[in-house]
Amino acid sequence: MSVTGNPANVFWHECTVGKAERQKLINQQGCVVWITGLSGSGKSTLACSLDRELHSRGKLSYVLDGDNVRHGLNKNLGFSPEDRTENIRRVGEVATLFADAGLICIASLISPYRKDRDACRAMLTDANFIEVFMNMPLEVCEGRDPKGLYKLARAGKLKGFTGIDDPYEPPLNCEINIEQKDGVCPTPSEMAGQVVSYLDENGFLHA
Amino acid sequence: MSVTGNPANVFWHECTVGKAERQKLINQQGCVVWITGLSGSGKSTLACSLDRELHSRGKLSYVLDGDNVRHGLNKNLGFSPEDRTENIRRVGEVATLFADAGLICIASLISPYRKDRDACRAMLTDANFIEVFMNMPLEVCEGRDPKGLYKLARAGKLKGFTGIDDPYEPPLNCEINIEQKDGVCPTPSEMAGQVVSYLDENGFLHA
Repeated sequence: MSVTGNPANVFWHECTVGKAERQKLINQQGCVVWITGLSGSGKSTLACSLDRELHSRGKLSYVLDGDNVRHGLNKNLGFSPEDRTENIRRVGEVATLFADAGLICIASLISPYRKDRDACRAMLTDANFIEVFMNMPLEVCEGRDPKGLYKLARAGKLKGFTGIDDPYEPPLNCEINIEQKDGVCPTPSEMAGQVVSYLDENGFLHA
Repeated sequence: MSVTGNPANVFWHECTVGKAERQKLINQQGCVVWITGLSGSGKSTLACSLDRELHSRGKLSYVLDGDNVRHGLNKNLGFSPEDRTENIRRVGEVATLFADAGLICIASLISPYRKDRDACRAMLTDANFIEVFMNMPLEVCEGRDPKGLYKLARAGKLKGFTGIDDPYEPPLNCEINIEQKDGVCPTPSEMAGQVVSYLDENGFLHA
């Protein structure tokens, strides 16, 4: 037997304070709000607006932003297909820990592939994974181009960019769909309101 | 320019709800209590006891156990020196996120090397990293041997085991030292009390 990679030597320690007790303490239900969509679709905008709205209601939430996490936990990952999958997996695992801690964890990542998102969903019980699809047309996202990345991708200076030369697979059964109404994009406050209503109706805002 | 590994394309998004606001909401200060020591020194016991004591005082804490995290976030890591360092780094990064979220994060890992622990300390402001050294004699830990690992290590069936054929580097300036008094080990409640006193005296139990 070697100490290298032998899971038989890794034990599971059960602690006495459980998720239910933490949830009771802060009067809410831990869950993951997973925001997926193209670059420029408004993921970070919704994440911030939702975070603010939940805080104003006395709820403890925390934003895991795909870009921000790349400066810390995932700073040793690049943008190869394997690294992108690992990037999403780690965020999913951390989001699951936050949900277990009792928080409403808001994860905001392009997460273009269905299988990667579904793998994160499978880390939690189904009801605690709330997938929010930023269902915005590519031309709207590209028109915004807040980071100038579409321009680079169109010029061929950025390869494998989601929506341009790499696919985005829309969710098939997401819990929340955020889209334009009559060609008008919802405001940050409207988008946050849509998610908060879902959380409220599904019992997440009380223990 | 390629999308592969170019940090210039990874932006930082600042959200409007900050650590101070979250801390005010739950009336505590986010921090990391990092428990280090030999296998069998009582790390998990202290983590559980401390978690329970903090909960009874209405404080939101969360335990990151080195073994448990290996079943999720770190399940793709083995026990090579590089993987052990990466295991500790990831736990440090996640603990830092939890502290930023406002929680008292209790990390329990052997974390035998000073440089790995110091790297985690450097992720936070110094005051928010509270290193707890389980300063128990090897013979006490080996006598307990709750997982039967010392026996395997002594029989040569487990290589690179901390304290037997791999070094443990004790902290030089830890915040809290847990040790025997007159040859008697402190009880779980006494150990937790020692940490809670530190947290209380240093303002972590109020916003």
